[in-house]
Amino acid sequence: MQVKRIKDGPERIYAVVFQTGDDPIEGLKAVARDEGLAGSSLTAIGAFRRAVLGFFDFDRKDYDRIPVEGQCEVVSLIGNIAESPDGPGLHLHAVLGKRDGQAVAGHLLEAEVHPTLEVMLLESPKHLVRRKDAATGLALLAPSTPGP
Amino acid sequence: MQVKRIKDGPERIYAVVFQTGDDPIEGLKAVARDEGLAGSSLTAIGAFRRAVLGFFDFDRKDYDRIPVEGQCEVVSLIGNIAESPDGPGLHLHAVLGKRDGQAVAGHLLEAEVHPTLEVMLLESPKHLVRRKDAATGLALLAPSTPGP
Amino acid sequence: MQVKRIKDGPERIYAVVFQTGDDPIEGLKAVARDEGLAGSSLTAIGAFRRAVLGFFDFDRKDYDRIPVEGQCEVVSLIGNIAESPDGPGLHLHAVLGKRDGQAVAGHLLEAEVHPTLEVMLLESPKHLVRRKDAATGLALLAPSTPGP
Repeated sequence: MQVKRIKDGPERIYAVVFQTGDDPIEGLKAVARDEGLAGSSLTAIGAFRRAVLGFFDFDRKDYDRIPVEGQCEVVSLIGNIAESPDGPGLHLHAVLGKRDGQAVAGHLLEAEVHPTLEVMLLESPKHLVRRKDAATGLALLAPSTPGP
Repeated sequence: MQVKRIKDGPERIYAVVFQTGDDPIEGLKAVARDEGLAGSSLTAIGAFRRAVLGFFDFDRKDYDRIPVEGQCEVVSLIGNIAESPDGPGLHLHAVLGKRDGQAVAGHLLEAEVHPTLEVMLLESPKHLVRRKDAATGLALLAPSTPGP
Repeated sequence: MQVKRIKDGPERIYAVVFQTGDDPIEGLKAVARDEGLAGSSLTAIGAFRRAVLGFFDFDRKDYDRIPVEGQCEVVSLIGNIAESPDGPGLHLHAVLGKRDGQAVAGHLLEAEVHPTLEVMLLESPKHLVRRKDAATGLALLAPSTPGP
């Protein structure tokens, strides 16, 4: 993983480039911790050699696992970073493209990069916070000061 | 719906968080009106408990409706806001992920959030305008000053 | 194609609007050349009347072609621009929605706009560079200064 801050000032922009074998979820959490990121949004494209997507089951209050075996294009990876009780709260959703163009989509639970994942991250000066939602058990984004 | 301006200055960044039962299309129009937004782009992730996607039919000059029943992950929601004759011109396209990971995709016509939709919105200082296109009847984005 | 710079200053924001018949890949390369863009990220929505998606084959070190015939919604187009040895290095991945909502996804190899493609582009003050990767032959994003 390589990290380059490409804009300083009140808001910061980063390019984060992952290489073969990297875990992008742990990698982005590490960047968030090291750089003190919160209130960030990101988009990314690239490819994985394996991934597990998730679909939230409201009865079990947990994600069903949807394994995606073999090489796939990361066609859309959209996410955000907020403060959460357990450290950086990272939320990522991915659309993956298979060899025949079939698209599979869901919450990103696990992934292994091959050969690259190119993340563009925009950080904002004010922090965003995640709080545990009693109804679902999910850590939902909770703007700490309602209203603009 | 909660709105937090997370960056002031010439361009503004907002986090808009929708909750269960919210209509994100009407909600984003309300934010655009209340905050005077134009020339904005946004990305979002979350989940819906129902949605209707659209595919534009050039013969009828209207959208075919593609109902998506039941809970789905909002895996990619990309859009923009511009001024239009009828108020804020909101254009949203969505990729939705079903329980088995199947992806469905189209123009977003209707949606009901469950349990959250997290929108990150970047507003630019110059306005963008939509104008009605005679050929299709669509309100297409028309940069008012051609050239940079 | 119409180009409007909607934010000046250290980072620049552009709206690039393509019209029927435009080639968005050549168009974005032209904008990148004309405006001296590098270190940019973009999102777009709209529609194509034909497209070819790609899936990278590591044995052949080239993309398999996945033709998408007929009108489709451009539901997610995410990409970035970096300097590369051959001029602007443009990397685009697309999720396309068919008439019935079926999603197809991959690297964008060819496309013809109909009736519009609305691109929002954020340029950063520092440059990003692509370098040829010996293992794959791909021009991968290589932050020139590792670390922030």
